[in-house]
Amino acid sequence: MCLNFRKCQSVLITGASRGLGLQMVKVLSNSSERPTTIIATARNPITAQELQKIAKSYKGVHVVQLDVVNESSIESAFQEVSSILGGNGLNCLINNAAVSTETDLKTVTPDKMMKCFETNSVAPLFVTKAFLPLLQAASAQGTDMGIHRAVVVNISSELGSIEANWGDGAAFKSYSYRISKSALNMTTRCLAADLEPQGILCMALHPGWVRTDMGGPDADLSPEESISSLLSVIADLNKSYHGGFFDYSGNKLPW
Amino acid sequence: MCLNFRKCQSVLITGASRGLGLQMVKVLSNSSERPTTIIATARNPITAQELQKIAKSYKGVHVVQLDVVNESSIESAFQEVSSILGGNGLNCLINNAAVSTETDLKTVTPDKMMKCFETNSVAPLFVTKAFLPLLQAASAQGTDMGIHRAVVVNISSELGSIEANWGDGAAFKSYSYRISKSALNMTTRCLAADLEPQGILCMALHPGWVRTDMGGPDADLSPEESISSLLSVIADLNKSYHGGFFDYSGNKLPW
Ligand SMILES: NC(=O)c1ccc[n+]([C@@H]2O[C@H](COP(=O)([O-])OP(=O)(O)OC[C@H]3O[C@@H](n4cnc5c(N)ncnc54)[C@H](OP(=O)(O)O)[C@@H]3O)[C@@H](O)[C@H]2O)c1
Ligand SMILES: NC(=O)c1ccc[n+]([C@@H]2O[C@H](COP(=O)([O-])OP(=O)(O)OC[C@H]3O[C@@H](n4cnc5c(N)ncnc54)[C@H](OP(=O)(O)O)[C@@H]3O)[C@@H](O)[C@H]2O)c1
Repeated sequence: MCLNFRKCQSVLITGASRGLGLQMVKVLSNSSERPTTIIATARNPITAQELQKIAKSYKGVHVVQLDVVNESSIESAFQEVSSILGGNGLNCLINNAAVSTETDLKTVTPDKMMKCFETNSVAPLFVTKAFLPLLQAASAQGTDMGIHRAVVVNISSELGSIEANWGDGAAFKSYSYRISKSALNMTTRCLAADLEPQGILCMALHPGWVRTDMGGPDADLSPEESISSLLSVIADLNKSYHGGFFDYSGNKLPW
Repeated sequence: MCLNFRKCQSVLITGASRGLGLQMVKVLSNSSERPTTIIATARNPITAQELQKIAKSYKGVHVVQLDVVNESSIESAFQEVSSILGGNGLNCLINNAAVSTETDLKTVTPDKMMKCFETNSVAPLFVTKAFLPLLQAASAQGTDMGIHRAVVVNISSELGSIEANWGDGAAFKSYSYRISKSALNMTTRCLAADLEPQGILCMALHPGWVRTDMGGPDADLSPEESISSLLSVIADLNKSYHGGFFDYSGNKLPW
């Protein structure tokens, strides 16, 4: 598969133990125009057997421990990734790790709201903040915006669109998840405004409804379909995507 | 002052100890067409001396203890308010209490993010959920939508508009506050979709930039200006506002 990721020397993905994160690592590792360095992070690398198998089969795939809600784990991962990358910096950070709980008005609790927000909205901010020196190092070596320079992709969800949560679009009930993803969209927009002067592109990306543990067996897309399309969008990112919310086909979504 | 609040028999306001919440209580108590029952809640009623003074000066103003992030306080307040209202239910719930911390990319911490989210986004959901039986009781007695029947007003902020957080609109940096208010907007939209079949109107309302402890001395509006306009919008709420995001002049805001 040709993905035009050669211009991107390094990519880091959170939540790569299974689901879409694992699929991204699979496709990128096996691509003919792949990034030199693929940092696949997982909170429990030892139990992530499929990921370990990929890392053994392909050169330049590094498995790094990263629990995105744990500050000391973020700090250790940053140290480890810095030494893997040397002075080149990081071209592409994909904040993919997330949790989901179906919570309707009856079943939602403050605790479920807080947990979902912590992983889905707060963690991407502090992972980005921690890896900023590496994104800045990469950005300093390029012009324009895109994966040849430095990008932050936050994996969001159409369920986080406030506008779309109406009529038929409101049929799926999940207070904690929906609220966390609209919060992530605002996080993305805040970061985009702040990182623009440094040439770091930042955007929110909806992968479609996909058959993973989270998406369930009835979802529209296979992980293969979602991720091949989503990675094409990432490969072609340019200034027009900066600060925006798009789906895996590159269509703009309403906030 | 004539506000056309007579059709609304009862209103409950959170965070009425000072700022905009206190101003709402002041204006409503003193209005010629006022609600019969005004429930002014505060987390520390004893120290809310201005509020206590108003409650002593006007009939039908009840001060009730309510810390919006404390589940047992919410439950006690619900019991107390139920016995004040008897079987008539509650016509208008105004979720006004909130906290703000200026947090730019440097100063924002996970803890500040979580605290702000808890008060500004989670609490309005669980206060609404707790008072739902009273809103339903009021709603059962009316038709159409509005304060004659049952409404939930979430006091949001233009700073919670993801769309507006760009260019000049992104000059004010506050990760925790902005993110909590966009999360509140999604909370509002989720509630609106779920409460619509019961005839309960639910909307998000931006009071303008106002000279309170939160808004600071340089803000555009006095509490008097903001609240007289904001209460007129609430007085005239109808179906066209349901599920939406508006400012104190009734102008629609982007998500
Ligand atoms: N699938 C869909 O239909 C769909 C639709 C829209 C958006 N999305 C988004 O797409 C992304 C991937 O979803 P998915 O379908 O692949 O979900 P998934 O199958 O449930 O996988 C979630 C991944 O996130 C990881 N994770 C959770 N908490 C973590 C933490 N604290 N630290 C590190 N990793 C953590 C999990 O690791 P463990 O294995 O250790 O639990 C797992 O690798 C998410 O952001 C999701 O919200 C998915
Ligand atoms: N002022 C502005 O320019 C502006 C602009 C946009 C939106 N807003 C929104 O307007 C609303 C009112 O703001 P304001 O300017 O009046 O703010 P403020 O002057 O800071 O007053 C905040 C109020 O919220 C209460 N509160 C905070 N946490 C609480 C809790 N856990 N339980 C109960 N009450 C709690 C405070 O009570 P204590 O006295 O006990 O602390 C106080 O009464 C807020 O939702 C705010 O976000 C304000």
